Order: sequence, then C-alpha cells, then structure tokens
Amino acid sequence: MVRDPVIAIVGATGAVGVEFLELIERRGVRFSELRLLASARSAGTTMRCGVHECMVQEATPEAFEGVDLALFSAGKGVSKALAPAAVRAGAWVVDNSSAFRMDEGIPLVVPEVNAHELDVLGAPCIIANPNCSTIIALVAVTPLHRAVRVERMVVSTYQAASGAGAAAMRELEGQAREFADGREFTTDVFGRQYLFNVFSHNSAVGADGYNEEERKLLQETRKIWGDPSVRVTATCVRVPVLRAHCEAINLTFAGDMPESRVRELLAAAPGVQVVDDRAANRFPEPIGAAGKDDVLVGRIRQDWSQPDRRGIDLFVAGDQIRKGAALNAIQITEHLLAAGRLTRATVG
Amino acid sequence: MVRDPVIAIVGATGAVGVEFLELIERRGVRFSELRLLASARSAGTTMRCGVHECMVQEATPEAFEGVDLALFSAGKGVSKALAPAAVRAGAWVVDNSSAFRMDEGIPLVVPEVNAHELDVLGAPCIIANPNCSTIIALVAVTPLHRAVRVERMVVSTYQAASGAGAAAMRELEGQAREFADGREFTTDVFGRQYLFNVFSHNSAVGADGYNEEERKLLQETRKIWGDPSVRVTATCVRVPVLRAHCEAINLTFAGDMPESRVRELLAAAPGVQVVDDRAANRFPEPIGAAGKDDVLVGRIRQDWSQPDRRGIDLFVAGDQIRKGAALNAIQITEHLLAAGRLTRATVG
Repeated sequence: MVRDPVIAIVGATGAVGVEFLELIERRGVRFSELRLLASARSAGTTMRCGVHECMVQEATPEAFEGVDLALFSAGKGVSKALAPAAVRAGAWVVDNSSAFRMDEGIPLVVPEVNAHELDVLGAPCIIANPNCSTIIALVAVTPLHRAVRVERMVVSTYQAASGAGAAAMRELEGQAREFADGREFTTDVFGRQYLFNVFSHNSAVGADGYNEEERKLLQETRKIWGDPSVRVTATCVRVPVLRAHCEAINLTFAGDMPESRVRELLAAAPGVQVVDDRAANRFPEPIGAAGKDDVLVGRIRQDWSQPDRRGIDLFVAGDQIRKGAALNAIQITEHLLAAGRLTRATVG
Repeated sequence: MVRDPVIAIVGATGAVGVEFLELIERRGVRFSELRLLASARSAGTTMRCGVHECMVQEATPEAFEGVDLALFSAGKGVSKALAPAAVRAGAWVVDNSSAFRMDEGIPLVVPEVNAHELDVLGAPCIIANPNCSTIIALVAVTPLHRAVRVERMVVSTYQAASGAGAAAMRELEGQAREFADGREFTTDVFGRQYLFNVFSHNSAVGADGYNEEERKLLQETRKIWGDPSVRVTATCVRVPVLRAHCEAINLTFAGDMPESRVRELLAAAPGVQVVDDRAANRFPEPIGAAGKDDVLVGRIRQDWSQPDRRGIDLFVAGDQIRKGAALNAIQITEHLLAAGRLTRATVG
C-alpha cells in the first residue's frame, strides 16, 4: 500500500500561497493531507482548497513532522530559517525564494528546461524555483538555445506589481481609485506613485550599477543552462500592471538562426503559446497572459542590427504568480510525484 | 526697422499645439502676430497665449499669407497638404509630423545634436522635427557617440499615451475612473484595455516584423547623425503612462568607453539631467520627466555582457509632448530667430 503525500505550504496566505491552493485543486495534485503554514499572525485563519477546508498553523521547525513535500513561498528569511528543518524531517522542499538558488548542489529547475536534474536526486532535499523573470524568459528562449547556442541576451523587463506581493497589487488598484476620487496617493509599498508611472525595479543596486533582479537573470540563466559563458544584460523595470510580466528580449546566436526556424521551434515548445498577428497588431500583453499557464511569445523578428541572421528579437508575457512562481513549483511537484518520489509505503 | 515674425501654429488645438502656446509664452518667443490654425471644426474657438487671446482659423493654403514661421503638428496628411503652400507663401516650416522627415534635402534636427544644419539653409523651407522616441534617445546618446562612435543600439521603449494624442490620454484616465466605478472600459482609441496593461506600439507592422515606430528610430538616427552604418534595433511598447516616454538603451561602442567617462560627458551635455542615485533607488521616471525640458538619464552602468568596456546600459525618460515634440520645434524656432532668419525688414 502507498499513501498520497502530506504536502505543506509555507506562506499559504500570500499571493503565491493562494495560487498554490488553486493549482493543487485545478490540476488534481494528489495529497493525503494539506498543511497550511504561515506566520503566527495568520495562524487560525481558514482557507479552502476545493472541498478541503484547512486551518492555517504557525510555521515552526516542528510543523514539518510527517511532511513529504513542502512548498515554500514566504520570503528568503523564512526559507533560510525553516527549509533545512523540513528536509531534516524527511520532506522534499521546493523553495520559491532566492535563499538557496545559487548554492552549489541545489538544483534550480524550470521543468520545461531541466527537469532531468530532478531525476538524479537521491534523498529529500531543497529544490529551488528560479526568479519569475528568469522562468518566463527561459521558457521562451531555451528551445532556441538548444537548436543554436545563445551567446548573448539583452533583456528589458516590464514587471507587474505582483512580484512585490499582494499588498503591491492592492496599492496599485487603490491608486486608481484615489485618482478617480481626486485623493492623494497611498504609497506605502513602493514609496512613490505607481499608477501612470514606471520605475526601476525595487531591488538593491550593487556597486556595478545592476540591481538584484538583473543579477538573477544573468546568474540563474547560467546555472539553469549549465553554461557559464552565456552573457546576459538586463534592465528591470516595474510598470503599473497587476500580475503578468513582459520582457523584450534581444538574442545573439552563435550561428545562423532564421526567423522561420524560431517560429517552428516555438510552435513546438512546451509551455509556449505564440501570439504574433502582425496584421491585427496583436502580440503578447500582460492582461492576456494573466491567469494562463503558458508564456506568450510574439514580436518574433530577425534583428536587422546583427549580421548573418544571428539576431532575433522577441517580446514575451507570462503570469508572474502562475508560471513565474506557483505553477513552476507545482510542475516540479508533479514531476516528483510521477517519479514516485513523494509516495510513502505504508505499513498496513 | 525690423519687426518680429508672424508665427502660425497648425494644429493649435491638439496636445502639441497647446504646448507650443505655453512654450512661446514661457520662453518669451518674440512674435508680431500669432495665427492659430486648425481644422474647420475647431475654427472660431478662442485660445490664450499669455496676454494674447487668439481665435482659431481654418488651416487653408491661403492662411499662410504674411507668415514668417509655421509650426505644424496636425498629422502627416495636413503637413503634406499645407506645408508646401506655407513655404510658397514665404514661411519657414517646422513640421512635427513624419511627412517629410526622410526626404532628401529636408533637414531633420535635434538642436542639441545638429543645429548647424539650420545655419546652411538658404531660403525658407521645411525643417522636420524627429519622432519623439528618436529625440529623447539622441539627446542622451549623442554626447557619448561624439566621444566614441556608437556602433549599435538596442532600445526598448516604455511609451506614454500622449504620443497618440490628447484623446489617448483622456481614455487612459477614463479607464482609471471606470475601474474605480466597476464600469466597463471605454476602448475607442486603442481598441483594448490600456489601464494595468502594456501593448506593442500601435503603428503598422511591416513584412520584416518591425513597426513604424521602430523603423523611425533606426532611419532617423542614421540621418541625424549622418552615419548610415549605425545599427539600431528597437522594441516599441506602450505603457499606461500619460505624457513621458522611457527607453532602456543598450549601447555598443567602437572602442573603450568607461562608465566614468559616460558620467562626465552626460553631466556636461545640453538638455540632459542625470538622475542616478543608486543608494536611494532613484532613477528616471516618467512622472519626474513630465513637464520638464530636460531628458533624464540614469541606470548608467558598464554592460557586463560586452568585453573591454565597450558596452553601456542607460535608462532615459523625456516628456513626449515637450522635448519629444513642441520644445524641439520651439528650439529650432529660437535658433532661426537668433540667426535673424525670421525677422523681416519693414519699409518705414
């Protein structure tokens, strides 16, 4: 006899936590128990996952007793504090924070790209979910990179409020209401007007002038592709959009990469939907990507600034909460489930 | 005796027309008569320029009688139909439309870049104002290009509603009110939700996949710099912002271009204000650029994806109506005035 896994969600009440519950229900992820964990402040709250009603408990090291899989999305600090305890308790951890992403020996996985890294894992351990911008870019670019090596990427992002959490989304919506009412803007989350504005990503800027979001795009791409030579420069920007990120991506290939081949590769790529109607001027938009599993890819064209068909321009849109966070972790979970890694033999 | 020029404004009631009036008043541009021209529909309307009150007249070929300078901003069709008549009547024309920009013999001028092209003009003729995205990019990039040649630019734009006129700005503001009231969005201008969304620029897309806005950035840059070898690829995108455009610009130089030199050059550049506070995460934003003459430049950093300090990344913001249109044309006017080209000797 085997039993379905005990799944814990750490950060259950956050934007990604809520999305975890929705995806578990919608995709029919099997579990024998769902344990919702959050800060002491949220303990006692009740949340639903389909027919199941669960009470949120405080996330403590002891809360992982008997857990087979723990999905973490409660920030870097909570992951650092509790993920090792979850592993010691025998759980696989899929961590959505940046706490362990760049650690040696920690797999950093986008299932469409490097699910094979999950198959060689021995005992329960921490698996890192990449940053949202990296996931969305690599779902689109990796099928091309596999055909002809990508040497360099220049990325400009158009990032949504959701990357900064549910409070940021509410603040943006609130500013629209404040504008309509002629009231002053509430600027608690970003300390500035967000409605009708655009600003550089709110992560720390290093001495080299790159912010953390831009640094992640470079470092995570190198790790996920296993290619320390790929070059990536990025400018990460927040735009007043609720929950899907867009990215303008300029690619330099090591060899000939005609537009027609890019179209063939993207049409066959998992997790990609091509939206590229030049006559109707219909291309990926964040409101079209919101609530969708797929990354939308369009504005596909041969870059006329690079010789010998070595350049391609793309514009992509992906739901930051869905594929940029929760769905990617759930796909990792499904991969582990399918490989029988999460089911325990019961004595019976 | 000389008298101040008769200045005509074609498209006086539009967003750029209104800005012309404000700048003429604020900057003290001398005139002996201000003649406001627009479509028959707007004729009879009264508009103010400082203490002067003027009645709008219909723009016809005969309306340019006695005009010394005509500022056109009423779309390509009106410019094609009426600018030649204005020149025949003896007027200098500064045309903000794309009608003549790429015509041989028509100077395409950003005063900070190539005002010298105005000095060699003989008789009254058409002078073209570049597209807003080109002006904003080149005010920032040309001082660098003059020091070390720019070989390639990769540009991603974050463009405001104003580029599509006052109606587009009103529609965006209207959607914020509709959101607040829970009403359906009015989508007359762009045919889609603009609030909380981002979409590919609403200009026609060619067979090569580039839209007209992107094509202008390439072609106008080559013409203004007089350098047909510069390579420019762009992805032009509208963001829900009212009146200032931003652009993420990645540069490849022909030789060594250290970040420190870029900072020195930009600090001394006319029309540029450096906004680059890494510690406070304060960089150019459209709401900071709105209503300002200068182009804001920040996120200045050595591009780590290019060897030998040959790459630089920048993020710029400029008021689309001001420097991207009206101010640039007024600066051309001021240059012609200072050179005594617009003053007529009177028989007296």
